[in-house]
Formats: sequence, C-alpha cells, structure tokens
Amino acid sequence: MSRLDSAIRRLQAQRACLDWAMAEIAGQSGPVLELGLGNGRSYDHLRHNLPGREIFVCERKVAAHPDCIPDDRHLLLGDFTDTLPGALSRLGARAVLAHCDIGSGDSALTAALATFVGPALAPLLATGAVVAADQALDIPGCRAVALPPGVAAGRYHLYRNSPK
Amino acid sequence: MSRLDSAIRRLQAQRACLDWAMAEIAGQSGPVLELGLGNGRSYDHLRHNLPGREIFVCERKVAAHPDCIPDDRHLLLGDFTDTLPGALSRLGARAVLAHCDIGSGDSALTAALATFVGPALAPLLATGAVVAADQALDIPGCRAVALPPGVAAGRYHLYRNSPK
Repeated sequence: MSRLDSAIRRLQAQRACLDWAMAEIAGQSGPVLELGLGNGRSYDHLRHNLPGREIFVCERKVAAHPDCIPDDRHLLLGDFTDTLPGALSRLGARAVLAHCDIGSGDSALTAALATFVGPALAPLLATGAVVAADQALDIPGCRAVALPPGVAAGRYHLYRNSPK
Repeated sequence: MSRLDSAIRRLQAQRACLDWAMAEIAGQSGPVLELGLGNGRSYDHLRHNLPGREIFVCERKVAAHPDCIPDDRHLLLGDFTDTLPGALSRLGARAVLAHCDIGSGDSALTAALATFVGPALAPLLATGAVVAADQALDIPGCRAVALPPGVAAGRYHLYRNSPK
C-alpha cells in the first residue's frame, strides 16, 4: 500500500468515526473537545456538521488553514500537559464528544502523548460521552466501541464513557 | 462539504487519475516526471506501482517524509522556472507520464505556476504521453482526456500528448 492509499484510508476512517460519534451525541447538550488541530480538517468537519455546538480545541502550536482556527475563547493553546488539567473550567461543562488526532511521525512522542492523554481526558468527559482517536487510548471509565463498517481494526479507535 | 470531505475527494481523484495514467503507459518505456513532491504521497504511489521505472521529481524545496525523497540524480531541486527548461538532459528521454501537483493555498501563485508549466512541459513529453494534473493546464500539442468514473469534472485533469 502506498502512502497515498494509506492517507485515503486514514481520512476515510477518521470521517466514518467522526460521523458515527456526531450521530451518537445528537440531542445531547454539551461541548465537543478536539485534541490536536493539525491542518484543521477534522475541526472543520465537526463544526460543519455540528452547527451551534461549542467546540474547544487543544493545540500546542497553531499551523492550520486560516479559515480553520477557532476563536481565542475556544482555543486552548499549549502542550496538552499544560492545557488538559485545567480544561474543564474553560469548557464550562464536560464534553459529550472528544476527538484526539495526536499522532505524528515521531512514534515515541506519539506513544508518550497517548499515555498522558488517556487519564487526562477522563475527568473532562460527560457520562456516556464518545471518544474518537487516531491512537489507542486507555481512558479510565471508558470502554472500546465497535468501529463503523469499512474501518479496519486499529485504523481508528472509538470509546464510550460508560455510565458509572 | 467540509475540508475533510474535500481532502478525501481530492486524494481519491488524484489516485484514480494516477492509476489510469499508470495503466496507460504499461509496456511503454520512458521515465516519469513528477512536478511538486509535496509530502511525497503521490511520488510514493507512483514508485510503488511502477517498480523499476525511473521517476524524476521537480521540487522547489523538499519537505516530504524522509522515506519519500528521491535520490539526488532523480531530484531536480529549484523553481520550476529554473529546472524545467533544462530537464530533458536530466531525464535522458522524454517522459511517458507527467504528474503535476502544483496547487497551493495561494491562488494567484498557483495560476501563475500553471501558466508557466503548460508550455514548459510540452518539450519534455513523449508522443502519446499522459499528464495528470491538479490544475487545468494548457500544454501545446496535448488534448484533454475524459476523467475516470467517479472523478467530477474539474477536480483533477488528464491530458494526452497527441501524435503529431
């Protein structure tokens, strides 16, 4: 498989998981949390399909398309280690959907980030919240959810914050 | 349509056009020319599906994944205005396939590049060569070719250097 094939599959998997997650939260109030803005494509997909929903974005350094940058109130700028611990006060309520697109070319850094993000995300999630992630995450209180049809195991990850 | 939807459609169109073009040149000897390395995805797709074929890449400034960078002999580094005029001596033979992925966020620059590339490409193409491009190009001696099924008009472009 070429990198072009791989990129198409990854983006299709991401979209299928985001579309599933957005359908799951229909009718539930609460903000959305995006970890990693990147070029802003998935943020744009979320806001395009969730009009009126508050979407908060954690990003270390903004490098997105200028049209895809949240306003200052919805942008938590800095390392996840700095922004996630205090994020709840910025969100105002626990998130009903979180999307984590945190992988980079650096596999050691990606693994370290995933290890940090799992536990850090848990207190930010509403009961029943759904999480879509490009990396496998160990989020206390969450269980893995079956992927949508067409998304191969391991290509993307879905979790639900199970009712306690 | 979100930027995620748009990215998926663009990459699918690119792949469909490259796959068509590669099938067209099966059995024809001659090098392949890639204008614009970008992140190296389409270059990787070409070399993955054309083992043994010489692929030359013109790129102003390499910023691709380290695994997707051609060796020095196959990399024509610099502005297209500097590299294309003398490219035939580097290629050793006219190209049977050219792929131009030259668009950027700067629409004026993209248009200027497309205007330059069309005529500059013509003397580098073998008779019957096929061209796939992300921009509409006016290449002397070439005519537009129908796009593969599923690729909407204008999303990508295909040309053939008609026998004189």
